[in-house]
This record gives sequence, structure tokens and C-alpha cells, in this order.
Amino acid sequence: MEAVLINGVASAYASVEDRGLHYGDGLFETIACRGARPLFIDQHLQRMERGARILGIAFPGRALLRKDIDQLLKGRRQQHSIIKLILTRGRGKRGYRYQAGQVPTRICMRSAWPTHVQRWARQGIGTRFCEMQVAVNPALAGIKTLNRLENVLASGELGSACDEGFLSDLDGNVIEGTMSNLFAVIDDTLLTPDLSRCGIAGIMRAQIIDCAKACGIAVKITNLSKKDLLNSDGIFVSNSVIGLCIVNQLEQRRFTHSMMIETIREGLKVRIDSDAKNVT
Amino acid sequence: MEAVLINGVASAYASVEDRGLHYGDGLFETIACRGARPLFIDQHLQRMERGARILGIAFPGRALLRKDIDQLLKGRRQQHSIIKLILTRGRGKRGYRYQAGQVPTRICMRSAWPTHVQRWARQGIGTRFCEMQVAVNPALAGIKTLNRLENVLASGELGSACDEGFLSDLDGNVIEGTMSNLFAVIDDTLLTPDLSRCGIAGIMRAQIIDCAKACGIAVKITNLSKKDLLNSDGIFVSNSVIGLCIVNQLEQRRFTHSMMIETIREGLKVRIDSDAKNVT
Repeated sequence: MEAVLINGVASAYASVEDRGLHYGDGLFETIACRGARPLFIDQHLQRMERGARILGIAFPGRALLRKDIDQLLKGRRQQHSIIKLILTRGRGKRGYRYQAGQVPTRICMRSAWPTHVQRWARQGIGTRFCEMQVAVNPALAGIKTLNRLENVLASGELGSACDEGFLSDLDGNVIEGTMSNLFAVIDDTLLTPDLSRCGIAGIMRAQIIDCAKACGIAVKITNLSKKDLLNSDGIFVSNSVIGLCIVNQLEQRRFTHSMMIETIREGLKVRIDSDAKNVT
Repeated sequence: MEAVLINGVASAYASVEDRGLHYGDGLFETIACRGARPLFIDQHLQRMERGARILGIAFPGRALLRKDIDQLLKGRRQQHSIIKLILTRGRGKRGYRYQAGQVPTRICMRSAWPTHVQRWARQGIGTRFCEMQVAVNPALAGIKTLNRLENVLASGELGSACDEGFLSDLDGNVIEGTMSNLFAVIDDTLLTPDLSRCGIAGIMRAQIIDCAKACGIAVKITNLSKKDLLNSDGIFVSNSVIGLCIVNQLEQRRFTHSMMIETIREGLKVRIDSDAKNVT
């Protein structure tokens, strides 16, 4: 971690009474930044605002969150970095109950760009299915809350030889990676799991869906089984930091080059470059 | 909050890099204390140790946790208070992945005894069913993790007129209260929800089950529907702070006096008083 603002003030410490720590009572966003430009920032802030509405957390406003981010990116030129934005319900007394309109805590952290991203983009990644399942709760589906123990424990199954793993729900539908969304190519269609009951709907996932449609590719949001994935023509994962990352291997299955994935990757690159040039 | 120790040192601030804050990557215990005596302390520390094993968090040892607690209770005589013990996986770099054997963070907080406990014991409580559901994940069932958004949001449904609310799983089984376990009397049997798929298995719940059995009462751990509860002869809830608390009302249904609940309450009182006198 290179720099942190808590409620706009540089600090490395949060109140021990913060409800984020006690209950995971909050939200976060992970934002890729090129120099001083946070990518897809409107979409990230929009998702956080939607999450705050669902959790009943007073949203501090996009302008204030943007001000924190800009302060941490000020003067940066070409270096990539990562901004993690956390919004919690704020400090609280003992107990789950909260006051409406409680003052939330905003945490804005800047980290160095991770070294594995370029390697993954060049080489693709190896993946597996995780034992850890993702629990179904439609009320919390799609949003990016601080309740992330399933992702943590699934990532603990990966070991050093495996880059990413996939979590299924209790009905056997594969939902997401530990830190990514998942796409599969079957025949001429791009498929991605339905996240209306669980999982996090990634910002990059939405960009990829839009991008594929713009390229004239049929996109289907549906249930996918392990077998569907193992029998698919190709798989890739996505998140805001890695963008689109090709899966070379899932368990024992190896995948070969997919023209469709190449087309989407090229289209997505144009979108990302275009967003990086936006001045907002 | 009256006093806090973080890793044994008085402090009101936790590292902003703590994984407890980022992912709810940790556990907690809420312990009722009479003077310098934390009640059912062995059971609380045992549950935390079990949770740490499940999450793969290095358990710092019961002796060290006990030392923190004793330091915050030192010199206290007759006043009741509450100790909240939090154990997180500790500080981490960005990302879900963690190192085995990472140094955990222990937080020990003392709070004043809440004023509602005596009123609830005297008057009983009014309850309702919550809309918020509890998600099923057998891998995390029973333990008391920091991923508690469902409890938080369910408590947000209660309003000022209602003391406690009940969460069901997606199959319609009533699992628990927002901050309590649940018992129902049907005919001559004491029933309590099966927590093998979700919910927190309370320390006081275990005491009540033991106590009822010792009184010769048949106890059944089973699935309970909303209808079962509304048609039952009596209901009560439990946790470490409120002990056993009688439910007067559930939605429109009012409950009258239950001899069986009185018997269990008397037996539990003896158990609690006896534990309070233990010197360990």
C-alpha cells in the first residue's frame, strides 16, 4: 500500500469501532488507474451507490469519493496503479442495529500495479474448481460487499501452481472466480453465469458483454455447470485489474486458441484505451 | 465502549490493512462478564479456536486471549460488563490470497452492560419474521465469523416497536434471530433449528439444550417453519448476554405462560450462577 485517506485525511488506522471491521458492514471497489485516470470510474461509483442503497448506507456522493481518488492520483503520469475504495456504515455502538443516516467511513487506498497482470495477459492462466461454495442470497447478489469470506477461503485452495479457481452455488451452477467473473464460448455464443442469486457483477464483465454485442456476438446470461465449462470451446475471466484474461487450462482440460475471444479482447482493448483518454 | 486492547496494547485504532475490515476475514465472541468473571469462557474460546481452524487462521492460544480479557476485567467487582473478542487473519497485502501462518490480530473490547437486558428478562419481548434471508453455506455454518451483513440488514427491519426478528433460509426454515438463537415448545418437546447448513450455534444455546435434557425434557434439533412457530405453545430466544428471554409475541400471535420454559429458565439460572462462581 502506497497511500491512504480515511474520510479525506491521510491515515493508516481506522477506528476499532468501525462496523466494516465488526460485521463487514460496507462495500468496496477496486479500480485500475492509468496515471491520474481511474478507469470506468463512473461505473464503479454507480455500483457503489447502488450497493449503498441496498445496504441502507448513506452514500457520501460521487463527487466526494472522486475527490479522494483524485487526491491520491495527483501528479501521476504514466504509471499504472490500483485504487481500492471502501465505504462502511461508519462507527457504531455494540450490536447489529444501526441508525438511519449514520455518517459512513470512506477509505481510499492506492497500491502499486501488480506484476502478475502482464504475465497473465501474455501467457494466460491455469484454473480449477474450488470446494468452497458461494451461498445464495438474492438480496445481496451482484453488489460488492465486505462479506468476502467465501472468496478468501476459495483462494486458499489454489496453491502456487494455480492462478484462479471457480466457485459454484449449492445447486452446482458455477458462479464466479475467487476474484473474477467467468465467460465461456460454446459454439458461436458467449455465455456467462447468471448473478441474480449470488456473485458479484463486475464492471469489466458489463464492458465485455457490451463489447461482444457490439461485435455482433450472441451473449447469453445463464446457468453453467462444471461439465458445460469443461466441454466449452474456450474460457476467460475478467476483472477491473486484469481486464480479459484467457484461461489455458481448467482442471485436466486444455484450451486452444479461440477466434471469438481474440475478437472480444481486441474490442475491449479499444474500449479501455478510449476510457483512459476520457477527461472527466 | 470503555476499553480496548489490540494485540494486548491499549488502542482505539486498527490497521487500515487489516483483513477483518477488508473481507470480514475473522471471528468474534461476545462474552457476558460478572465482575472479573467472563461467563462460559472455556466454551467461547473453544468455539473461536474451532472457527480459526475452519478459516485457517493461526489461533493465538486460549491463554493469550484469556490474558487480554483478564486485563480488561482486572479489579472489577460486582458490575456486569460485556467483552467482545475479535480475531482476524491480520494485516494483508491487496487481494484475497493469504499466507499460511500469518500473524492474526486480536482485539478485546469491554462495554457497559446494556440496560435493556433486565427489562427484557422482566417483560419478555415482541418479535417478527424478517424479509432478509440467511444464506446456506455448510462450510461456514455454526461458527461466528465477521461476515454478518444478513444479521445487520435483518436488524434494520425491526423498527423501534419490535425487539427481535427471525431469519429463514431460502427453503423457508426459520434459522435464528438477528442476534439470538431460537427455541420453541411444541407439546412436551423443546425444539430448536438445525444449524448444520447456516446460522450461528450459540454458547447459551448449547447450555440450554444441556439444561433441558438434565431436567428430563425431550429436545429435538430439527427444521422449523414459520407455521410451526406460530402454532407452538411457547417460544424463547437466547444469547450470551440476554441468557434465556421469553417471547410474548410473534407477529399477531401472543403466547401465554409455559411451565416448561420456566423450568428451563430456573435450571439455566443455576448453571449461570455456578459458572460465575468458578475460579479458573
